[in-house]
Amino acid sequence: MTVLVIGSIALDTLETPFGKVEDELGGAGSYFSLAARVLTPVQLVGVVGSDFPERHIETLRSHGVDLQGLQRVEGGKTFRWSGRYDYDMNVAHTLDTQLNVFGEFQPKLPESYRETEFVYLANITPRVQLEVLDQVRNPRFVGLDSMNFWIGNPDTKSDLTRVIERVNAVFMNDAEIRQYTGKYNLFEAARSVLALGPQVVLMKKGEHGAVAVSREGIFVAAAYPLETVEDPTGAGDSFAGGFMGHLAASGDTSWAGIKRALVFGSVIASFAVETFGVEGLLKMQRATIEDRFEVLRNCTIFDSLLTQPSAVSPQPSAAAGN
Amino acid sequence: MTVLVIGSIALDTLETPFGKVEDELGGAGSYFSLAARVLTPVQLVGVVGSDFPERHIETLRSHGVDLQGLQRVEGGKTFRWSGRYDYDMNVAHTLDTQLNVFGEFQPKLPESYRETEFVYLANITPRVQLEVLDQVRNPRFVGLDSMNFWIGNPDTKSDLTRVIERVNAVFMNDAEIRQYTGKYNLFEAARSVLALGPQVVLMKKGEHGAVAVSREGIFVAAAYPLETVEDPTGAGDSFAGGFMGHLAASGDTSWAGIKRALVFGSVIASFAVETFGVEGLLKMQRATIEDRFEVLRNCTIFDSLLTQPSAVSPQPSAAAGN
Repeated sequence: MTVLVIGSIALDTLETPFGKVEDELGGAGSYFSLAARVLTPVQLVGVVGSDFPERHIETLRSHGVDLQGLQRVEGGKTFRWSGRYDYDMNVAHTLDTQLNVFGEFQPKLPESYRETEFVYLANITPRVQLEVLDQVRNPRFVGLDSMNFWIGNPDTKSDLTRVIERVNAVFMNDAEIRQYTGKYNLFEAARSVLALGPQVVLMKKGEHGAVAVSREGIFVAAAYPLETVEDPTGAGDSFAGGFMGHLAASGDTSWAGIKRALVFGSVIASFAVETFGVEGLLKMQRATIEDRFEVLRNCTIFDSLLTQPSAVSPQPSAAAGN
Repeated sequence: MTVLVIGSIALDTLETPFGKVEDELGGAGSYFSLAARVLTPVQLVGVVGSDFPERHIETLRSHGVDLQGLQRVEGGKTFRWSGRYDYDMNVAHTLDTQLNVFGEFQPKLPESYRETEFVYLANITPRVQLEVLDQVRNPRFVGLDSMNFWIGNPDTKSDLTRVIERVNAVFMNDAEIRQYTGKYNLFEAARSVLALGPQVVLMKKGEHGAVAVSREGIFVAAAYPLETVEDPTGAGDSFAGGFMGHLAASGDTSWAGIKRALVFGSVIASFAVETFGVEGLLKMQRATIEDRFEVLRNCTIFDSLLTQPSAVSPQPSAAAGN
């Protein structure tokens, strides 16, 4: 099934210890789309200005992303983000953010998008997320991202709560969920969010993977063990793209399906961060994704104590008694 | 089989957002011993001063730790550590360290300890670690911990390399292994250490678990998902105690055995950090350890793609051809 994403499309200028790029294709919507598109068809809702290079449009289009929902504001300027990472790649130092046309964005979904059942609301004003949800007729599984900026303001926080009440999966990192719930204990915090309605809370931990909490249990997804991380930009949205992409492709939103989708998230985020910008996402293919899925499984699986011969050797007398 | 540990025995004074204790039983040797003792017999080599309270001796003894290797220096003062943790429990703020009798420690192993095959060298001057190794007749599996202080000095670093060449498992965190090898890439750094001889490098990541790298592969052990962490003191040595304790108990030092031992490390570290000081380690029992082992397995296991019906449904023609 198709997945619809609403999110930023940006021109990123960024620097890490491994290099520097200027005005590259960025933004949550772009990363999510390019991450999910190998797994399932993707509809992108976003906005750019007239300065947005045709080559970036072509990158999205040639990789199969449906751009009917992409608005171009003539005379407007595209959202720009500029940042730097030092050796501790878990911390992004934002140098500059210019919302430009993204700040005024009022998404209007094309008719063909309104029947889409899998929806990802990337980080944007919660009010805009609500407006998008209102336009989707039969959402089956909605994923939500947000940020500290909306949690810190009482008005936008109240809007955010209304969004959370209508979604299935909430993506938050440790700091965000503590800020939102006022609870230090992460599992207690996650249960507070679940109490608002969602099926699962996904706590992202960057290079340490992610933890899912649902009413059915806890699942710890390791990050894929990469040799090199060149650029963590877009890791979270690529993770979400892998997660939502697999859910939409499989249609399996059970707890087992969600666990598997999280591993797809980890694997696809690994392609995003091992090279600069979106380059790694453009090169990945179904077969390399599945290879990494199995590698990650081999890196995390271990035998139950119950399968040890000493633990399971049948007691003859008990067997005879049955 | 028995495991021998040489390490500090300390009086800890510490504060976290959840409480404060003074002159409690601490030190790597204490945490390791109390962590491993549920799994296997433990021999402790260490030193205390005449100020060391009898009740701490009794705590170790009553929990089955063999104290023939414990020296008491009359008139000497016990090693003291004082520290504070803020809400970010991954970072210890050391307020004071007094090595006292531990600074001059020259361990002499009792005759009954010299045949012990499983040995853990907790953090101490590398030269002392070498002297201990010289006294052990047939070491089968030796684990080694160290710290930045010994890596930063060229003389002690050279001694440390001589220790590494003689051990089976090296415990290092990200910063330590980067400092020791001069390599930023952690897997490259781990391979440099393996090239010196060890069978496995164990990279501790605090609340994010641990990663093992051997010639046979990579294994990512999640931390046990705890509701509360009250005091991370001793987490690393408790982890090592669970790891070495299981190896010694099972005698299985294969890659599969090492993976299982790492999970014991994660589980036992969880008992250490959820309450203050060594209290959690004193209360744990074989059954609760095994329960958490299975819980952690359930929190990390997911199905292979190859077990999906769509992926494994046999191709009739291919089957006929075999």
